[in-house]
Amino acid sequence: MKAARYHDRGDIRIEDVPAPEATPGTVLIDVAWCGICGTDLHEYLDGPIFVPPAGHPHPISGEAAPVTLGHEMSGTVAALGAGVTDLQIGEHVVVEPYIIRDDVPADPGTEYQLSPDMNFIGLAGRGGGLSERIAVERRWVHPVGDLPLDQAALIEPLSVGHHAFVRSGARSGDVALVGGGGPIGLLTAAICKAEGLTVILSEVSAARKAMATRTGVADHVLDPTEVDVPSEVRALTGGRGADVGFECAGVDVVLDTLLDAVRPGAAIVNVSIWGHRPVVDLEKLVVKEIDLRGTIAYANDHAATIELVRSGKLDLAPFITGRIALDDLIEQGFDQLIHHNEDHVKILVRP
Amino acid sequence: MKAARYHDRGDIRIEDVPAPEATPGTVLIDVAWCGICGTDLHEYLDGPIFVPPAGHPHPISGEAAPVTLGHEMSGTVAALGAGVTDLQIGEHVVVEPYIIRDDVPADPGTEYQLSPDMNFIGLAGRGGGLSERIAVERRWVHPVGDLPLDQAALIEPLSVGHHAFVRSGARSGDVALVGGGGPIGLLTAAICKAEGLTVILSEVSAARKAMATRTGVADHVLDPTEVDVPSEVRALTGGRGADVGFECAGVDVVLDTLLDAVRPGAAIVNVSIWGHRPVVDLEKLVVKEIDLRGTIAYANDHAATIELVRSGKLDLAPFITGRIALDDLIEQGFDQLIHHNEDHVKILVRP
Repeated sequence: MKAARYHDRGDIRIEDVPAPEATPGTVLIDVAWCGICGTDLHEYLDGPIFVPPAGHPHPISGEAAPVTLGHEMSGTVAALGAGVTDLQIGEHVVVEPYIIRDDVPADPGTEYQLSPDMNFIGLAGRGGGLSERIAVERRWVHPVGDLPLDQAALIEPLSVGHHAFVRSGARSGDVALVGGGGPIGLLTAAICKAEGLTVILSEVSAARKAMATRTGVADHVLDPTEVDVPSEVRALTGGRGADVGFECAGVDVVLDTLLDAVRPGAAIVNVSIWGHRPVVDLEKLVVKEIDLRGTIAYANDHAATIELVRSGKLDLAPFITGRIALDDLIEQGFDQLIHHNEDHVKILVRP
Repeated sequence: MKAARYHDRGDIRIEDVPAPEATPGTVLIDVAWCGICGTDLHEYLDGPIFVPPAGHPHPISGEAAPVTLGHEMSGTVAALGAGVTDLQIGEHVVVEPYIIRDDVPADPGTEYQLSPDMNFIGLAGRGGGLSERIAVERRWVHPVGDLPLDQAALIEPLSVGHHAFVRSGARSGDVALVGGGGPIGLLTAAICKAEGLTVILSEVSAARKAMATRTGVADHVLDPTEVDVPSEVRALTGGRGADVGFECAGVDVVLDTLLDAVRPGAAIVNVSIWGHRPVVDLEKLVVKEIDLRGTIAYANDHAATIELVRSGKLDLAPFITGRIALDDLIEQGFDQLIHHNEDHVKILVRP
């Protein structure tokens, strides 16, 4: 079968690889759609980061580059391995793409995302969504019912936003300030909106501001080059400040703005992956007793995320900004994101 | 009466000022002892910071420099203003030295430390502990029973440590890593120890390491110039890492060490006041889902802190490293702390 294989920085190839089979305990999935993630782009431009370099196999998967890419996938069940009895052939599913040690419990509430050597299917081995088929442990397969398979491919990044929301402790009626309107910022805003929060988004890009307005994920869109964001947020909240902030930019000044714009006692969730070590004005964190909370990926979030979309509280369709074939992955996928990043939220690949 | 008055940076004078009286709702206190705080030293060397400069009166107290210094005070009740009926003349008390707007509720659980324009008695007006007498609103006066008055003067900084402990969410049996063994680091360690935690202290100064060992506040004292602190902490915790960290140094590398040495999902409480904007490796916060929590002063902490000391779970006597007269405040107080800071935890002044 065809698969997009990451060999090294700048070297992704569409190759023929052996098709996987439904081994015991796994689900064989015909991939319908797979999104291209900022992490994939990061691996292409600056990696290997999550990908284990050739000769340095991952301690759990035992694999190293070349590996099949793609971790934002949806598809239909093609076959069930021995012992898997609670899914049907043809059922629509998504994958929670974890590579986690077998001895880490899967019980609800378990923080398995923090377990040692955690990594991701589609980055550190075990196949990937940028291929025709993939076999995945039952534990990581989530049925999505009648959710359209293109939207279902966005459940994975949406679950990142859901996990950030859970980490924030925010409740319906709170005011959230989201700093940065890239894919994760928009999807985090969408979750907050669906959960009943008032959402203020801070973003400088015209295309991203337009997307935030068009999708309705933000009640207010502020451009920090045009207004003083903390003053505007206070004006919108009766002088108090936002109840919760989400750092979705990985930019020092965005975090600083959040520290200024949230109320005393607020939580700020650091959703972005930092490419550098930022300068942080921790005095603001101290005197306002702010909680700055890290969040990584998701844990026990997929079911709630799927239900938000299935119930109609959240529409993922507007976030799909491109659909391409696997053979066009570099030219119409990665190159588009490199040169026209701000015009895109999610490009889906049909393997 | 005599009082130490802060006029400006480097200009503290022992002057005669009118003695206060017990106005309605206040308690007149004969000051027994008043500690010199790092904040006082900071005002002397780099201020005015908390002190409102001459001509810029504080919005609540209405006062500006010169103001009487001293906010770590103990004493005996000398007179009760009209309406104060629940204290006795001669009773031993300490002061929770807040200047807070009258409309901020004092109910338990209220986060009054985060209210607008909050400042401190002894910095922003309303008298200070570095004088013979002070009149304080009943709300901020805490009886200490039979607690010796010299130790009682340390209840204020100890409450800072107690508040940091509460903010951490730590529980008996947890392992705490305290970064920095200055006065606040040692007192935070003492609170953790009294609350049933295992305490690891990281400190470079020989005098402070000796103090930590002598007072028994730390189960393990690690010197980062001699050992790799995160490795040692993991070795002491079965490979897991500390459950909670306390940044009590205001030094970038100390915070970075805490980020490395705590377990995934841990809280780090930022207790120190930063004199600069640190570089923070937030990637470590993200991938381990660490909570970095600000803490300022105290709120609803004094009663619990007093009880910890009265019950014998915590002995404050060893932390008193000097006793001086008010007339010797500069030469034997501030100058000692400037030139021999590491040999001292708390110098008490007897006005």
